[in-house]
Amino acid sequence: MDYQAVLEEVAAYARPFVGRGHVADYIPALAEVSPDRFGIAVADINGEVYGTGDWQVPFSVQSISKAFSLALVMAGSHGDDDIWQRVGREPSGTPFNSLVQLEWENGIPRNPFINAGALVVTDRLLTMTGDASTSMLEFLQAESGNAELAFDQAVAGSEADHGDRNAALAHFMASFGNLENPVPSVIEHYFWQCSIEMSCRDLAVAGGFLARHGLRADGSRLLEAREAKRINAVMLTCGTYDAAGEFAYRVGLPAKSGVGGGIVAVVPGRCTLCVWSPGLDARGNSVAGMAALDQFTTLTGWSVF
Amino acid sequence: MDYQAVLEEVAAYARPFVGRGHVADYIPALAEVSPDRFGIAVADINGEVYGTGDWQVPFSVQSISKAFSLALVMAGSHGDDDIWQRVGREPSGTPFNSLVQLEWENGIPRNPFINAGALVVTDRLLTMTGDASTSMLEFLQAESGNAELAFDQAVAGSEADHGDRNAALAHFMASFGNLENPVPSVIEHYFWQCSIEMSCRDLAVAGGFLARHGLRADGSRLLEAREAKRINAVMLTCGTYDAAGEFAYRVGLPAKSGVGGGIVAVVPGRCTLCVWSPGLDARGNSVAGMAALDQFTTLTGWSVF
Amino acid sequence: MDYQAVLEEVAAYARPFVGRGHVADYIPALAEVSPDRFGIAVADINGEVYGTGDWQVPFSVQSISKAFSLALVMAGSHGDDDIWQRVGREPSGTPFNSLVQLEWENGIPRNPFINAGALVVTDRLLTMTGDASTSMLEFLQAESGNAELAFDQAVAGSEADHGDRNAALAHFMASFGNLENPVPSVIEHYFWQCSIEMSCRDLAVAGGFLARHGLRADGSRLLEAREAKRINAVMLTCGTYDAAGEFAYRVGLPAKSGVGGGIVAVVPGRCTLCVWSPGLDARGNSVAGMAALDQFTTLTGWSVF
Amino acid sequence: MDYQAVLEEVAAYARPFVGRGHVADYIPALAEVSPDRFGIAVADINGEVYGTGDWQVPFSVQSISKAFSLALVMAGSHGDDDIWQRVGREPSGTPFNSLVQLEWENGIPRNPFINAGALVVTDRLLTMTGDASTSMLEFLQAESGNAELAFDQAVAGSEADHGDRNAALAHFMASFGNLENPVPSVIEHYFWQCSIEMSCRDLAVAGGFLARHGLRADGSRLLEAREAKRINAVMLTCGTYDAAGEFAYRVGLPAKSGVGGGIVAVVPGRCTLCVWSPGLDARGNSVAGMAALDQFTTLTGWSVF
Repeated sequence: MDYQAVLEEVAAYARPFVGRGHVADYIPALAEVSPDRFGIAVADINGEVYGTGDWQVPFSVQSISKAFSLALVMAGSHGDDDIWQRVGREPSGTPFNSLVQLEWENGIPRNPFINAGALVVTDRLLTMTGDASTSMLEFLQAESGNAELAFDQAVAGSEADHGDRNAALAHFMASFGNLENPVPSVIEHYFWQCSIEMSCRDLAVAGGFLARHGLRADGSRLLEAREAKRINAVMLTCGTYDAAGEFAYRVGLPAKSGVGGGIVAVVPGRCTLCVWSPGLDARGNSVAGMAALDQFTTLTGWSVF
Repeated sequence: MDYQAVLEEVAAYARPFVGRGHVADYIPALAEVSPDRFGIAVADINGEVYGTGDWQVPFSVQSISKAFSLALVMAGSHGDDDIWQRVGREPSGTPFNSLVQLEWENGIPRNPFINAGALVVTDRLLTMTGDASTSMLEFLQAESGNAELAFDQAVAGSEADHGDRNAALAHFMASFGNLENPVPSVIEHYFWQCSIEMSCRDLAVAGGFLARHGLRADGSRLLEAREAKRINAVMLTCGTYDAAGEFAYRVGLPAKSGVGGGIVAVVPGRCTLCVWSPGLDARGNSVAGMAALDQFTTLTGWSVF
Repeated sequence: MDYQAVLEEVAAYARPFVGRGHVADYIPALAEVSPDRFGIAVADINGEVYGTGDWQVPFSVQSISKAFSLALVMAGSHGDDDIWQRVGREPSGTPFNSLVQLEWENGIPRNPFINAGALVVTDRLLTMTGDASTSMLEFLQAESGNAELAFDQAVAGSEADHGDRNAALAHFMASFGNLENPVPSVIEHYFWQCSIEMSCRDLAVAGGFLARHGLRADGSRLLEAREAKRINAVMLTCGTYDAAGEFAYRVGLPAKSGVGGGIVAVVPGRCTLCVWSPGLDARGNSVAGMAALDQFTTLTGWSVF
Repeated sequence: MDYQAVLEEVAAYARPFVGRGHVADYIPALAEVSPDRFGIAVADINGEVYGTGDWQVPFSVQSISKAFSLALVMAGSHGDDDIWQRVGREPSGTPFNSLVQLEWENGIPRNPFINAGALVVTDRLLTMTGDASTSMLEFLQAESGNAELAFDQAVAGSEADHGDRNAALAHFMASFGNLENPVPSVIEHYFWQCSIEMSCRDLAVAGGFLARHGLRADGSRLLEAREAKRINAVMLTCGTYDAAGEFAYRVGLPAKSGVGGGIVAVVPGRCTLCVWSPGLDARGNSVAGMAALDQFTTLTGWSVF
């Protein structure tokens, strides 16, 4: 596979979609990003990296961090399925931060990729490591090989200023006994995780363990093969907010998106991709990013279906 | 791959699960089936068929028919995505015959595999063919190579006697203008579709086009490759009631289950499976069937993830 | 109390509101009514009747019939609170024909004045009398002293043509075992009840038993005093769709409204009123009718609060 | 009316119900109260007070405070209906602290007597007075003529320890922009309001303005007559959690209950009652208190219906 040629063709295909949609504007630091950005990178399982466009420009990972916090919690509790007592793995069927389902199901979030579920995972990581945001940053630095990765303090602060809905979710779960740490700590670490800045290159490389069935960049084992597969399964069914079915239908790859406009996708056994373009559709996924991944599986035939 | 050996090992693994769960009892004809039944069959893309246990015993396909009616509607409207204006493709996130989401979303069912969605698909098939149940039966006879396939009149009649919930769904969608044919006709054809009796062998063979990227048993094209992939995507995300995430996580294959205890699963490009055991878990999926498929992907490594 | 003077003053006050809102247009026979109509009548407990405007013009009673069918069922089962096992008496808190709450509460409607609840009451009346619409018509003829009262066949037929939502409700309740008679019979009688044509005069006189603590026009007892009070209580808390709180707040009288634009209100121990003007607000209550009743209690001080 | 005789008869009637139900146990200070307590008091509009049983024993007012905070906000904003832009006046139709309806209706609580609504009212009172709990305590001291009234610090502290659900509600409304003050301040004042200790005598006397059409104990005007009526209307339709319809049906008086076991009821133009017994039914209302009020209206005929 000539990845570079494929990426160029994908980028050409996606170009008309760049700038469409709306840039997330609930916090100023996100709203300032130019809608004209577009980058895409692929890291194959042998460590080769390819990219085009703004593939080396850092952006806010936002909800993409949810996939990494899940991996870290699973890695830290091999064979102990405890986390799945506290969070489900079924698609949510309602907008991503809805409280309805949470009430219906007694404080157990439907899956780890809606905000409520990610708060539970962050809470668990906080208990395991004592610092759920720094431990993630260090992991991402190590896996991406980029020691410069950092939090964006402006973003984290803004999230906190607009964090009433997440605070509501966290208090609501606490009322059902589903948090181990104080609500303010959980929320704070959650916001810091979301604020990490990474480029397409960084994310494609850092997510390599999902394509390598659980092996880290240094060849050591982070997750059992079945655990890595399970994260991919959750990504496919729940990774793109309320568009998981649409995404499976059009793209057919496990993926996790963020409102910063990034999407990480996995071709198990082959490679990890990351695409970025800030314009979002009505369900919070990058318009040009979706188009690019659609074209990528069309060209490669690498849909899992 | 020595399919026969794999099936024997899978059957041995599943044996302790046979008889667990509850046999569907909302209609007498289903309640009479012995919970001790277990069969599994594989049809590879070259036409070879393997099986063990009760793999040649007919059972009621029930909701498995939903996958075939979707395929027939897509086959009959190549390039015309009209059906997706009337039914979504997102997981439902609530029990399979819930009316709540239907009301929230103005009579558009979430996906074609919840009852409401299947009624819309049946309605479309009825408009296209004039007979949504006979056309399906004839298709299944042709694809399975079994001209003996038939409706089970007792089951269809019983469904009608206990059909108030489906009638409610159909009238409700009609009130939103989302049915083309009279409610009683749609419901009747839907019940007849569900009542078809087939064995694991019949279903594995008849579902071969899903593994062959759309090619029928006779080599002619039923669906474009991307259409077949799309049905697989809907099966993976929505095919097992409210357990699609759990199923993706444990098994990792596109699949459609029925309350008769059958499950059809697809390994794209390789084979189609069907497993049957009548005992159901709380979410309506065969307990031993789930265990068997779980073991199958463990032994073969053929999870899509 | 000089009722005639009060009514004239009320009518003058309400005049600017006449013609506001929207006339119900889901069936043609209702849509044809002129929005400029306004009438009001009072029947005191001594049998005196007063009125002004179009108070003698017949209109479609629609949901006002729900109060009479409840009364007839309660009258037919003195001391037997059976009906309250099948329907609640709490406000619904959601639009009047919502299915959500019905599903949440296992097929038991919240109260007898939402459509689902009225279908249960009609079902009960059908079992008790063998004819739930004719028995109501005869009762209304007797109580109003107007033997000319009749069904409006065009309205009843139109309702049936647009009856999918009520059919959905009825089938849904039947699926929970909460109907005694076949769905089509129940729906048909329900539609005929709604189609009865009466004037403000007829309705004020016919509803006199609610002000007389259960005594009929001929002095015989229809309901025990506590039963009449209970119907008034249900009217106050549930009688005006999702505006019962607003109505209690502004008017402060037990009342039942219909989408034909009529509202019957009760001043316990004193009189029964009926006001009619076809323009409806967003919640289905007559705009000018609400204004008139508001002014009536302001002038008389007869709010129950 | 010989109030004392009526109260004795009511108390005798209610005695078998005392001790039934469950004492609120979500905070220790409430759980310690003996279930055998029963008291009832009546204050007529001339200032006479009658009582029997434990009518002079203080208990935790809990949600009864919601009626007083609504009155204070209405009193402080005569002719300015601003508060009704931020809270509705319709019954909620779901358990009293549900988040579902709040999400459905964009952060506007259904009425001022569910927790969410009371938080909005408290927020408004906090803006108006600078101290939403002390201003209420001082008002209650003045109206009851009991300068000893005080907060129960143990109760207020316990509420805060178990306050995650109220914190969730408040943050959720804040996310919709429906709070003026910081969430922690609003919650704190809300808890202090609930923690006030009063006896049946205190509450019957302090609630006298609701029977006197808005006149305070000293004869000055707190509320316009129509405002007092409006509070009574909200009490009747929304004052007893999800049992308002049942309460209207059985008792027929405006009332506000609390999980401390108290219920304040109003006979407009005549008197205000308060009954107390800690055993609660499944919907959070005092079992013996409901029975006593039922008997009171049976004996006096003073149901508003």
